[in-house]
Amino acid sequence: MGPAATIDLMQKILAATPAQKDQDHTPIIVWSVPQIPDRSGAMLHGDASPLPALLQGAKQLQRSGATALAIACNTAHHWADEITRDLDIPLLHIADAAVADLRGRPIAAKKVALLATRATLQSGFYQRRFKAHDIEPLIPCELDQAAIGSAIRAVKGGDIDLARQFFVPVANRILAHDADTLLLGCTELPLLLPGTGFEAQCLDATAALARACVRHAFPQQKTDQQTWRSNGLRIS
Amino acid sequence: MGPAATIDLMQKILAATPAQKDQDHTPIIVWSVPQIPDRSGAMLHGDASPLPALLQGAKQLQRSGATALAIACNTAHHWADEITRDLDIPLLHIADAAVADLRGRPIAAKKVALLATRATLQSGFYQRRFKAHDIEPLIPCELDQAAIGSAIRAVKGGDIDLARQFFVPVANRILAHDADTLLLGCTELPLLLPGTGFEAQCLDATAALARACVRHAFPQQKTDQQTWRSNGLRIS
Repeated sequence: MGPAATIDLMQKILAATPAQKDQDHTPIIVWSVPQIPDRSGAMLHGDASPLPALLQGAKQLQRSGATALAIACNTAHHWADEITRDLDIPLLHIADAAVADLRGRPIAAKKVALLATRATLQSGFYQRRFKAHDIEPLIPCELDQAAIGSAIRAVKGGDIDLARQFFVPVANRILAHDADTLLLGCTELPLLLPGTGFEAQCLDATAALARACVRHAFPQQKTDQQTWRSNGLRIS
Repeated sequence: MGPAATIDLMQKILAATPAQKDQDHTPIIVWSVPQIPDRSGAMLHGDASPLPALLQGAKQLQRSGATALAIACNTAHHWADEITRDLDIPLLHIADAAVADLRGRPIAAKKVALLATRATLQSGFYQRRFKAHDIEPLIPCELDQAAIGSAIRAVKGGDIDLARQFFVPVANRILAHDADTLLLGCTELPLLLPGTGFEAQCLDATAALARACVRHAFPQQKTDQQTWRSNGLRIS
């Protein structure tokens, strides 16, 4: 979907992999098709559904030998059940990965602000998982949400500087007044994080998903050929 | 092959694409399989050939709907003819892309040092194209070549700082004494370029290949749906 977010996920998988040479890395097949209809438009305005294109991509990846699916778009996870219904391979759900990371932190997160698209918030898949683990999900006010939406659109248009102008003041305000942690629940938002100074108070859902991918590819921290053959990719 | 080089090519395609929103970008399918046998080992030491794995990847990409092939590994282009023999889609050859970029420069490059793996140099696909366009290809001396090989291995192992220690002095010396331009003809080398100060005297073959990909995807600088459908990816 967002091609920069796809690249960001790949980089975070690379960074999370202990490797000394090419052959130590996990194989990845990428279906980067930015023409998949806008997820937010479909949910909020009744525009064309992305589901047929999501299903096509998922099935193509499965046919190509993928042993698990990861989606570098939070909002698309609204359709997670429909995507996986006819698949033989699991979806590594980004919100499951984020909650696993939150629960693994040395100091427990209690109040976590959800920075995401309106559509992701409306879908509720983060809120349901947070409540199941006694984490209070905080939803930005209307004005802050509008700024977050503007930041996301600016990243998609390639203007990182403009996006930071929308994102950084809102993030600082929410951390000062309400939340102990910011969940960056839109794959464009982590691209704005370097140098902000509040990196340690953020949970980057993309990085959490990358770690889930690496756990899938190397289930016993093995990097030998046998492991990648059996888990990373079926070479036909 | 090298997963960092694959990501670098994707980023350079993204940067070369005029886009305001997700849907303006070209679709890309990526077959990132770092287990493909080492290309240099096969050429120089008679190790296992990468050709079967290269063919498998190329055919899988064609089956998935790709309308052209790009390979983020210079050395693999040694097998370009064998890879394309049974394909219906073209290979955008990295050395053709590099020569096109060299010829498009406002000040003509005359003496271009080839910084690449030993195997790429032995294959000779850069030298043949350079000579056809009256560009003199300069080959590093044995000591410099050893340092370039060490730099490439360090990038593949993820140690950019170490790689720069090998690469930067050699690059500076060659520019001071012999060449007017450095051809970065191994996809790991451009990762070392930012901040060196001699970026303008380098031709980044990966960036040239990225521009060739964008020209393929948008042959008339159109970004409408019809164009990506017909050229970027066949959606079945």
